[in-house]
Amino acid sequence: MNKQIAIKEIIDFLGVEVIHVFGEIENVFVMSLKPAEYVDAYSLDWIGSLKRNKQEIAEQTKAPAIICDPTVSYTETLKKNHKVLIHVQNPKMSIAMIADRFFIQKLSPGIHPSAFIHPGAVISASAYIGAGCVIGECVIGDDTIIYPNVTIYDNVKIGSQVIIQAGVVIGTDGLGCERKKDGTLIKFSHLGGVVIGNNVEIGANSQIARGALSDTIIGDGTKMNGLCFIAHNCVLGKNVWITGNTMLAGSVVVEENATIFSKVIVREQTRIGKNSVIGMGSVVTKDIPENETWFGNPAKKNEK
Amino acid sequence: MNKQIAIKEIIDFLGVEVIHVFGEIENVFVMSLKPAEYVDAYSLDWIGSLKRNKQEIAEQTKAPAIICDPTVSYTETLKKNHKVLIHVQNPKMSIAMIADRFFIQKLSPGIHPSAFIHPGAVISASAYIGAGCVIGECVIGDDTIIYPNVTIYDNVKIGSQVIIQAGVVIGTDGLGCERKKDGTLIKFSHLGGVVIGNNVEIGANSQIARGALSDTIIGDGTKMNGLCFIAHNCVLGKNVWITGNTMLAGSVVVEENATIFSKVIVREQTRIGKNSVIGMGSVVTKDIPENETWFGNPAKKNEK
Amino acid sequence: MNKQIAIKEIIDFLGVEVIHVFGEIENVFVMSLKPAEYVDAYSLDWIGSLKRNKQEIAEQTKAPAIICDPTVSYTETLKKNHKVLIHVQNPKMSIAMIADRFFIQKLSPGIHPSAFIHPGAVISASAYIGAGCVIGECVIGDDTIIYPNVTIYDNVKIGSQVIIQAGVVIGTDGLGCERKKDGTLIKFSHLGGVVIGNNVEIGANSQIARGALSDTIIGDGTKMNGLCFIAHNCVLGKNVWITGNTMLAGSVVVEENATIFSKVIVREQTRIGKNSVIGMGSVVTKDIPENETWFGNPAKKNEK
Repeated sequence: MNKQIAIKEIIDFLGVEVIHVFGEIENVFVMSLKPAEYVDAYSLDWIGSLKRNKQEIAEQTKAPAIICDPTVSYTETLKKNHKVLIHVQNPKMSIAMIADRFFIQKLSPGIHPSAFIHPGAVISASAYIGAGCVIGECVIGDDTIIYPNVTIYDNVKIGSQVIIQAGVVIGTDGLGCERKKDGTLIKFSHLGGVVIGNNVEIGANSQIARGALSDTIIGDGTKMNGLCFIAHNCVLGKNVWITGNTMLAGSVVVEENATIFSKVIVREQTRIGKNSVIGMGSVVTKDIPENETWFGNPAKKNEK
Repeated sequence: MNKQIAIKEIIDFLGVEVIHVFGEIENVFVMSLKPAEYVDAYSLDWIGSLKRNKQEIAEQTKAPAIICDPTVSYTETLKKNHKVLIHVQNPKMSIAMIADRFFIQKLSPGIHPSAFIHPGAVISASAYIGAGCVIGECVIGDDTIIYPNVTIYDNVKIGSQVIIQAGVVIGTDGLGCERKKDGTLIKFSHLGGVVIGNNVEIGANSQIARGALSDTIIGDGTKMNGLCFIAHNCVLGKNVWITGNTMLAGSVVVEENATIFSKVIVREQTRIGKNSVIGMGSVVTKDIPENETWFGNPAKKNEK
Repeated sequence: MNKQIAIKEIIDFLGVEVIHVFGEIENVFVMSLKPAEYVDAYSLDWIGSLKRNKQEIAEQTKAPAIICDPTVSYTETLKKNHKVLIHVQNPKMSIAMIADRFFIQKLSPGIHPSAFIHPGAVISASAYIGAGCVIGECVIGDDTIIYPNVTIYDNVKIGSQVIIQAGVVIGTDGLGCERKKDGTLIKFSHLGGVVIGNNVEIGANSQIARGALSDTIIGDGTKMNGLCFIAHNCVLGKNVWITGNTMLAGSVVVEENATIFSKVIVREQTRIGKNSVIGMGSVVTKDIPENETWFGNPAKKNEK
């Protein structure tokens, strides 16, 4: 992490995100991103748009370069101290892009010798499979990273540039039951699979169940945090964002760009419309239309 | 999955579930169960009792044989097309039984070489133990299937024909604490075990804690879906059905045939009466009598 | 578990917890702790302070020695039967201390050969690392116990006498996202680590995410039960008690001695004051001051 990165290279990488650059960028380098209290003369600093004292933070930073929004002015003080001020559309997103591109240590492709891989599995040479993983007869795409102790059952297809955190289980049997008159539970065995698109992330200890006859589907760019449970035959569109410990019961459909916050339960067979938002801790018992915000137990539309 | 199965063999297997069979069953074979949109001339088709256009589905299917309820008539069209129509009590349950018997690939008994088994464990020769499992000093019965990356602590007894999905932890310490006056937490160490009956299923990444002094008990035929947490000293009767991410706190008693839907929390020391039903997302703070339906936060009786 | 323990040794161990001892303690030994219905002439019995018929339990026990509070009298019957009666401040806490000291089988230090340890990890010689664990470049202190199938990412520091139950994941990436105008989710990559103090316990299948730039911190003596999720940059003080399946979203601060019951979700950036208590199933959307009890969805102060 102690490589010098030219600030010019960072600006080029951000491209259209950059609105304007102030100061002399030649021979300005950074080596790290650090928490506010530890920022030093080798860090790239950034100022979130919601901060109250943005100008003050900029004036006082020890960092040679600052990512911020256009409300921060390039004052005489900044100029005199040879600071580089980079105005961007969304400082938080820019710093996220920079962290991912320049500061995250990438895992080298390969399969850890302690992983157990089904002989019929088809795994891209650029994928990474961590220690203790158990991978069934499935397909894993390019540049996909599977952290340790993940279990993937048979009949799972995973796209490219997917990240699966540790302890995840994909393709497990759902557990729909019918109860006989004597109380005995008859399990509906599941013959379907799971299809996961590209650029998906699945958080630690989450699980995705296989479909009953058809597949459970996770769309491109969808990201869910840890301890989530996607039940059999759910169909998630593109760029759905689910934060932690949320459960979608069987056959839930979530349309693109929906956001579901933490610890939500969505009833089986329910449809969540595109761009809609569900607040944390909600119990969703009916369909939610497009572009609405719902929360509560039971969840209701936010009329504000 | 491409074996031919005589429709006669399926009818014999269903036994008393079958009300009546229409059409000529000799030389009729099926090879698969498929999602509705993919049903072909080699599939067994079925029609759920809640479908609205049941007769139409039957008339239009490409499948040679159809499982359905008695409201679907054996019309001239069906007769002319040499279809077999099988009237049953509950089509969904019949198809579940058929899937399990004829279409699910069974795992061969055996212990994966990467599993670590305590030398004092007693494991049936017909059990299956998947890769990466760690099994303490415990007893595992006939035909029981333990999927990969499961951890079982010492002093756990598991019956026959049990299914444990991947990532489950059984026999972990509960974590009851007493707080000293200075704030320090003293953990109540647990010396008991876990006893799991026959025909039980435990969903992926669930956990069952050992008892404090006596055992945590799961009755025969009880089935729970993924991410469930059964705390120390719970006693579950026969045929309890728990869907995903539900937690029973310490010493909860659940009587037979109760159904607890997803993301429920049940307070410690509480009793759930037999045949009762708890709606999803409920927070159960008091005992629930037999044969009632409760839901909400806090859960209340459904008076409808 | 069949070693004889002198009651005198137990009394000495309890120290200031003991208020008074009745009866002759020389040559009195016990061998086990058992559930009430199985207590025999070789057990140490105890009577919780909330029991209604405490005197009766004491008079009728088969055990040679009884731990109880001072409301139980040393009657002629007890004297005649040569019972030892030990009055303590808090019988439940005393028996927890005794169980931990005398009756729990300790694991021998060492690293299981099937565990995978990063060559740069620094692990105390007195730590125990179970089968199937995957340990990144991190530090693990004295007498710490890590049960099987745990995954620890790089940049995690764990103190002494910590217990990590099976299936836990520590140091996983959080998943804060920014959504671009076209709906694409940009993940905020996390560069921080996790710091866990001494005497901490983490329940099975829980997870603790690394911080974004600074560290996620768990204070000394804090204990959490299974299926908990501590998100990025949370800071937990000393002796925080969290029961099962609770989630703290990003950057939550929990001050010392707070108690959070099961299945709670706490909103990101929220602060929970010291000694406060949050009831089970609560959805916490705002800061909670010191010394208060809150519950519900959304959580409100208990005014009783």
